Amino acid sequence: MAHHDFSPTHYHTTIGWHDPVLEIDSGDTVATTTVDARGRDHSGERVTPRGNPQTGPFYIRGAEEGDTLIVRFDQLKPNRPWGWTGGQVAANVVDPGFRPVFTDDPKPQFDDDSNPSFLWDVDIDAGTVQLATGDGPMTKTPIKLDPMVGCFGVAPAGGQAISTATSSTNGGNMDYRGFRQGVEVQFPVYAPGALFHLGDGHAAQGDGEIVGTGVEISFDVKFSVELIKGRTIYWPRAIDETWMMTVGNARPLDQCVQHATTEMLAWLTSDEIGLEARTAHHFLGQCVEYDLGNIFDPAYTMVCKVRREQVEALRRS
Amino acid sequence: MAHHDFSPTHYHTTIGWHDPVLEIDSGDTVATTTVDARGRDHSGERVTPRGNPQTGPFYIRGAEEGDTLIVRFDQLKPNRPWGWTGGQVAANVVDPGFRPVFTDDPKPQFDDDSNPSFLWDVDIDAGTVQLATGDGPMTKTPIKLDPMVGCFGVAPAGGQAISTATSSTNGGNMDYRGFRQGVEVQFPVYAPGALFHLGDGHAAQGDGEIVGTGVEISFDVKFSVELIKGRTIYWPRAIDETWMMTVGNARPLDQCVQHATTEMLAWLTSDEIGLEARTAHHFLGQCVEYDLGNIFDPAYTMVCKVRREQVEALRRS
Amino acid sequence: MAHHDFSPTHYHTTIGWHDPVLEIDSGDTVATTTVDARGRDHSGERVTPRGNPQTGPFYIRGAEEGDTLIVRFDQLKPNRPWGWTGGQVAANVVDPGFRPVFTDDPKPQFDDDSNPSFLWDVDIDAGTVQLATGDGPMTKTPIKLDPMVGCFGVAPAGGQAISTATSSTNGGNMDYRGFRQGVEVQFPVYAPGALFHLGDGHAAQGDGEIVGTGVEISFDVKFSVELIKGRTIYWPRAIDETWMMTVGNARPLDQCVQHATTEMLAWLTSDEIGLEARTAHHFLGQCVEYDLGNIFDPAYTMVCKVRREQVEALRRS
Amino acid sequence: MAHHDFSPTHYHTTIGWHDPVLEIDSGDTVATTTVDARGRDHSGERVTPRGNPQTGPFYIRGAEEGDTLIVRFDQLKPNRPWGWTGGQVAANVVDPGFRPVFTDDPKPQFDDDSNPSFLWDVDIDAGTVQLATGDGPMTKTPIKLDPMVGCFGVAPAGGQAISTATSSTNGGNMDYRGFRQGVEVQFPVYAPGALFHLGDGHAAQGDGEIVGTGVEISFDVKFSVELIKGRTIYWPRAIDETWMMTVGNARPLDQCVQHATTEMLAWLTSDEIGLEARTAHHFLGQCVEYDLGNIFDPAYTMVCKVRREQVEALRRS
Repeated sequence: MAHHDFSPTHYHTTIGWHDPVLEIDSGDTVATTTVDARGRDHSGERVTPRGNPQTGPFYIRGAEEGDTLIVRFDQLKPNRPWGWTGGQVAANVVDPGFRPVFTDDPKPQFDDDSNPSFLWDVDIDAGTVQLATGDGPMTKTPIKLDPMVGCFGVAPAGGQAISTATSSTNGGNMDYRGFRQGVEVQFPVYAPGALFHLGDGHAAQGDGEIVGTGVEISFDVKFSVELIKGRTIYWPRAIDETWMMTVGNARPLDQCVQHATTEMLAWLTSDEIGLEARTAHHFLGQCVEYDLGNIFDPAYTMVCKVRREQVEALRRS
Repeated sequence: MAHHDFSPTHYHTTIGWHDPVLEIDSGDTVATTTVDARGRDHSGERVTPRGNPQTGPFYIRGAEEGDTLIVRFDQLKPNRPWGWTGGQVAANVVDPGFRPVFTDDPKPQFDDDSNPSFLWDVDIDAGTVQLATGDGPMTKTPIKLDPMVGCFGVAPAGGQAISTATSSTNGGNMDYRGFRQGVEVQFPVYAPGALFHLGDGHAAQGDGEIVGTGVEISFDVKFSVELIKGRTIYWPRAIDETWMMTVGNARPLDQCVQHATTEMLAWLTSDEIGLEARTAHHFLGQCVEYDLGNIFDPAYTMVCKVRREQVEALRRS
Repeated sequence: MAHHDFSPTHYHTTIGWHDPVLEIDSGDTVATTTVDARGRDHSGERVTPRGNPQTGPFYIRGAEEGDTLIVRFDQLKPNRPWGWTGGQVAANVVDPGFRPVFTDDPKPQFDDDSNPSFLWDVDIDAGTVQLATGDGPMTKTPIKLDPMVGCFGVAPAGGQAISTATSSTNGGNMDYRGFRQGVEVQFPVYAPGALFHLGDGHAAQGDGEIVGTGVEISFDVKFSVELIKGRTIYWPRAIDETWMMTVGNARPLDQCVQHATTEMLAWLTSDEIGLEARTAHHFLGQCVEYDLGNIFDPAYTMVCKVRREQVEALRRS
Repeated sequence: MAHHDFSPTHYHTTIGWHDPVLEIDSGDTVATTTVDARGRDHSGERVTPRGNPQTGPFYIRGAEEGDTLIVRFDQLKPNRPWGWTGGQVAANVVDPGFRPVFTDDPKPQFDDDSNPSFLWDVDIDAGTVQLATGDGPMTKTPIKLDPMVGCFGVAPAGGQAISTATSSTNGGNMDYRGFRQGVEVQFPVYAPGALFHLGDGHAAQGDGEIVGTGVEISFDVKFSVELIKGRTIYWPRAIDETWMMTVGNARPLDQCVQHATTEMLAWLTSDEIGLEARTAHHFLGQCVEYDLGNIFDPAYTMVCKVRREQVEALRRS
């Protein structure tokens, strides 16, 4: 149950079988930082090239292929007072051929890599996020600060190293707003030590990440890990106060739903939960909910979720 | 603002340019009934063949192609104490080749048309729905009664008559749990009189209608209509206490999202709402939510939604 | 085996349970004409509104739900020396956001319904088709005349009337270039008399109909029908000199492939062909071919095909 | 223009930025061997673990990000007299829930890794391939030997290492039967030296690789490389005697078509070919063809192709 403070000195833009930056044990906690999607840190300085750079990987002692790694986000806290976003709903999210006409002309104030972007004020004490570019209505109507991690996961199967632009069974760039402080996310372990990476914090984000970004920002993060030996899962799972969740990353969204639903059926009927198949099917049929994670990245994300209290009631019956 | 009581004597299993059963005016209210998806009424008697039989169509005087018809569900009330469901998550919602193994063996008690089904108790006073077949945990853990209409809409474009199994720009079998009592749904008008049809009530339903049914039941319905002359929309829209919603019906789900998001951008930037395009894009980017209507029918359904109070705040800014 | 000459006086832009224009018997032949996709006949006159207007329907005596109707195209002959096309690959066929830049500026010469279009010369004797608008290279390099019917089929199930823009199990706007003179197409019968419709001739077309049109033209058509009582099929099938084909109409293309492949397995293992399942699977695995019908219409089309001589060799083995 | 003989001593099951096994120059030729998809060589011995093991990578001197690498398959020759296949059309290629019933019972004779498989005789002199398991019709009706490479490509962008189960912009497991002896395939270069990998030979394969395999076999391969400095392409392209081809790897097939078509438009309007955009659009509209590469692997493959002689005629006009 050790605590580690870790200051990153380099970052990765693939999630893969990279040399670990720190070895930790199941039960340990790590306090560290992440840079934003373009590699800028708490001071706004670019410290590494763009592309959802990842802090880590962290090696969890004893983790082997076939195990499950649980990561709990104890703290997800923006560590600077501004973020940035894209400003246009992506072409793959609107009807083919649809072209918006923008009549306003606020100059995006933060333009690097030829990707114009819009600045946002992030007020952690007030718990708000507010557009800071131009003078339109979005600059006058704050929205709720709701920090989440866009891209994180463990090393993928078979020695792969996969771009932090996308996601797969090992997690990655899922861009799901439900990955907030307090959530416990479970990953299938493929590599020795699991090799946990994280980065790409958002101060807020709509469903689908449809403008291609949340409010991109750097974070102070605290997370703890737990290793479940010999429990094999096939897609990321998560638990928060209210929900049990399973995650499918693929294209089209239909396939995300197939993966997430199959994983939820597996979970509900596993030794851990113990429902009979018929009960699980009836329960999902009338009570399941789905969230759209992202519909922007190379792999899209859908989340299948059920209420923990309903599952507990069924287990007691 | 007349009130009409209408008792159906026949039903349609297509939504089309059928002879109207009643002519009404904008502002009028209709009290009527719907049978369940297999044509059974409040007494359980089969009064018409299966397939989401529709009550109607209702002819709204003055409605012409290019107008918008608003239908408000003033009452959606199950009128019998039982419903039925399928009992297996559909093959297109799980991974290809996945086959559940059911170890329980409750005999489905309600078997017609060679489609075994499971009975549920519906207690309107208690506000609960509960499996009545077998003795598993779902028979002991009531879920919340949450009545909704699965299939309803106006006559489609160009003289078409489309099966009540599917949906399109004119509505139809959307199977979205958000179509509850109190919601106002807007439809593009294609046929003279709009020709509103409705049927297929559910006492409850999970997202996606993934077992192929909600808790299928007959309803007492009260609805009122309002005609907006000369306002042209392209997909169903809806408003309830909290949300503005747009609906896309297509396959795959990606295309549903494209239709619903494009329609939402059109709505937010219309004369009615009046946001500038950039504001609408920023707002959706960080605040939009999506619901999965159905992923079972020939056309799937996704709903794009935003909070009305946020839209109002932007309009005031 | 009667021969009928039929001159249409009206047309339909849905395929549905319309009043038949002619009753014929299995074995009969019909000589008739079709107008082009915008309702223009052999003289170029617009005789009916646009939208793939259909000649028919023809009622085949004795046809009932559960039967199979075979239509043989004995002659598909353009009956005027010009056609027209779109001039831009459709937005849903290129990467989202891709926008071609056209530097040439030939004014499209044939502009109605606000849909600019390009004229083509059709030389039936020479067997060529050639762009006639502008002076670019396509006006100097003739392509092969290869007439085909874009939209044809029988009345769909359950009293539906479906737009001639789209297609389903009953055929419709499949826009597959393999539907040439000499092909025999099989349809599942849903309505009494089958109710065969046809229209939308093309003098040539690429795979996918990716500019939204072939070379659109009016036809002299001769077809004959054969009714197979009691043989039930689920998707259109076809036979030409070389191929056995099955057709899937849906979205996305993946689903078209699923329908067409399942139908081909059903055909190969039917009493008519008689292969064992294992033989059919091995054969498809190493010998199947697929064609892209259309990727433009609301429902896309993929064709699964195998060589008749290979099937015959397997049946003899 | 050196010739290299290379005997592999190890293999990769990812395509990535691996240490090269040989450095060669543009213009050089390499003679080498590949093992089959399960790591068995010409003698049938398993020399490396399963999963489309790749020979290479080969480092092409001078190749840098932004260049194009051309690989010509001068020889693709099976080097043993047998191959193996799966025996069932994959679950994702048939309708959801469709389950074939196999009444025959030939014991698959070659069963490793718990994946039963079927043996085939490969007669290189006769140019035939024939099922060798059981005594059904497929064992008596030889099909044509048509060797092709299933999985090959260059290192992907940004330091990734991607499983040989799948494919992307860098090639990979495309399983397209058009990649035969004589074809020239072009790849976008991402890594220094391009890092060309190849493996997974098939003696024959149907479109789509719908049973999950071709006739899997080991090869003697001869290939030559050419480096085009400063020409940037985005997806694999290919040329054979008849066709210019572009390749899209993604899901669903619709997206493959989008990538391949956009790449073909880019090619036709590039300095290399020089057509104006309008000519390219007209030409594709009426003359394009599409092939289905695979509909089995994690990423599917569609190929967009046009006839070289038609392109040459347009360039001369």
